[in-house]
Amino acid sequence: MTHSQAVLDGDRLALSRLLTQVENDSPEGRAALIELFPHTGKAHLIGVTGAPGTGKSSLVNQLALHYRKTDGKRVAIIAVDPSSPFTGGAVLGDRVRMRDLSGDPGVFIRSMATRGSLGGLAQSTANMALVFDAAGFDVIIIETVGAGQSEVDVARLAHTTLVVEAPGMGDDIQAIKAGILEIADILVVNKADRPGVENTEKALKSMLDLAHPTQRVFQHHGISMNVDAPEVDSQTPLWIPPIQKTVSTEGKGITELAGSIARHVAHLTHSGDWAVRERTRLEVELEALIREELMNRFQQTVLRAEYQAIVERIIQREIAPGEAAKILMNGRLK
Amino acid sequence: MTHSQAVLDGDRLALSRLLTQVENDSPEGRAALIELFPHTGKAHLIGVTGAPGTGKSSLVNQLALHYRKTDGKRVAIIAVDPSSPFTGGAVLGDRVRMRDLSGDPGVFIRSMATRGSLGGLAQSTANMALVFDAAGFDVIIIETVGAGQSEVDVARLAHTTLVVEAPGMGDDIQAIKAGILEIADILVVNKADRPGVENTEKALKSMLDLAHPTQRVFQHHGISMNVDAPEVDSQTPLWIPPIQKTVSTEGKGITELAGSIARHVAHLTHSGDWAVRERTRLEVELEALIREELMNRFQQTVLRAEYQAIVERIIQREIAPGEAAKILMNGRLK
Repeated sequence: MTHSQAVLDGDRLALSRLLTQVENDSPEGRAALIELFPHTGKAHLIGVTGAPGTGKSSLVNQLALHYRKTDGKRVAIIAVDPSSPFTGGAVLGDRVRMRDLSGDPGVFIRSMATRGSLGGLAQSTANMALVFDAAGFDVIIIETVGAGQSEVDVARLAHTTLVVEAPGMGDDIQAIKAGILEIADILVVNKADRPGVENTEKALKSMLDLAHPTQRVFQHHGISMNVDAPEVDSQTPLWIPPIQKTVSTEGKGITELAGSIARHVAHLTHSGDWAVRERTRLEVELEALIREELMNRFQQTVLRAEYQAIVERIIQREIAPGEAAKILMNGRLK
Repeated sequence: MTHSQAVLDGDRLALSRLLTQVENDSPEGRAALIELFPHTGKAHLIGVTGAPGTGKSSLVNQLALHYRKTDGKRVAIIAVDPSSPFTGGAVLGDRVRMRDLSGDPGVFIRSMATRGSLGGLAQSTANMALVFDAAGFDVIIIETVGAGQSEVDVARLAHTTLVVEAPGMGDDIQAIKAGILEIADILVVNKADRPGVENTEKALKSMLDLAHPTQRVFQHHGISMNVDAPEVDSQTPLWIPPIQKTVSTEGKGITELAGSIARHVAHLTHSGDWAVRERTRLEVELEALIREELMNRFQQTVLRAEYQAIVERIIQREIAPGEAAKILMNGRLK
């Protein structure tokens, strides 16, 4: 028996336990994900990403407080730290957060370090979000550090992606930003009381202009049998990422930011993009599970000795990995 | 017929064409990888990683020049840009490089943007390195931007990983560095003529001290049937990452850096770590190919209509993705 029912009933301890099971990818966690799945699909997933030093954690904190105070929404925060790939460990800033949000039963904060395996982080994050969704959290904020693949994964998972910048973060981050513009639904210039904020804003604006705004095409590098996306009304106005200035340490600009987020949700719903993103997300998840299940089944069919022997032949350069894979698959290994 | 023989014979145009085929994962590229594989295993793979603004490209440039002038080694550079996940495009700084290295037949530079799919980048990079290795390049430098998974992938691929820092890159990059220390074989403080270099060096040193240096365990989150690592002499001294200061724009510290790299190679050979890393790399590659081949075969067995129907049931929350995967696998779908 899993903790599923207790989680649906709002038991925080059961929720906490289940999150651990899901993060560890335990059989109990897997079973619970299947049981909880029918209760999902209601939460708004907000991704928050950006370089270290932009004040993301503090911003997420303020946003959570805003949703609590203003709308009474239940808020979950998943803080993903891909910067510590090998060891794992708590995300910095947790204690700061706890001070403002602790004791509020409408808030649940969970940190997660990477698990090392490719794709494991994205999958774990998606599964945790699913649990929070089923547990009745209205808003799930997924915070991630750093540039690159982890941001892309967050963008694929979230309905709304915030990219956080701050003035004076270095000279040649332009190259990074060019990529980031493509995943950002809302650009946030945090620490907007710092010198250089005009330059940061100007740089972002000119990039937005250069980008020749076209409606974001949701790319899915999935398997070829993907179903077609639902039809989208071509008359729907394009979404051009707004730039919001905030000073998260003082709570400035948070209400305006929440307004932008609300407008984005309205846009997603009206344009049909919400359904497109949901579908994409579920397809990506299905594909990952298929890959994993295939590998599990493969492992059950191949003997360890066979595998060892073929790895040895590769190391001796007798056969290429590509040939070895085929040989193992066909069971033709002597 | 592939370009393999021409590549082995040193034909640069054939090499260039083959690299494109390999990057595009074309059938010709795949066939060539199998043909070339027996000719690999000789090159020294050096990974260079670090945040934007640390001057990595310039450093790689200088290192390549050093190997050309001092040792007459043939050098290939693979510049990976994971910061532009969706679009692709050339890596900044290529033109700067070309100025110093162009016209030298002993140098080959190749830029690569991410291909979007999870794992695709690491695989493409590994395949390109394989081609350069077979083509007789003695040193292959793989340069990558950004923090996170891409760095880990480079560390898994390379024999020697350089992590480049620069003074004054922001206040809370400590969290990043904690993770980076675990993949660094050599720490480079570039732009060492800038103010704050002492602080950067001191911070890195105290982190190294804190890390309680233990021999780097090469983690492989692979499939469970991995063969055992070759025996390593437990008397071998540990490798503690040295800190090298450079001013790459002026070529300062490059000779000393090359000295550190040479000592690392000697350490790898003496300790048996070279063989361990080779084995790990080949096993990771084999596993990736197995996963891919399994997926290909799966796709051939499932009808598009079946797949569409089951995705629809997931979207309607009738079944969870985990159940759907099992149903598709068992061919039990009505």
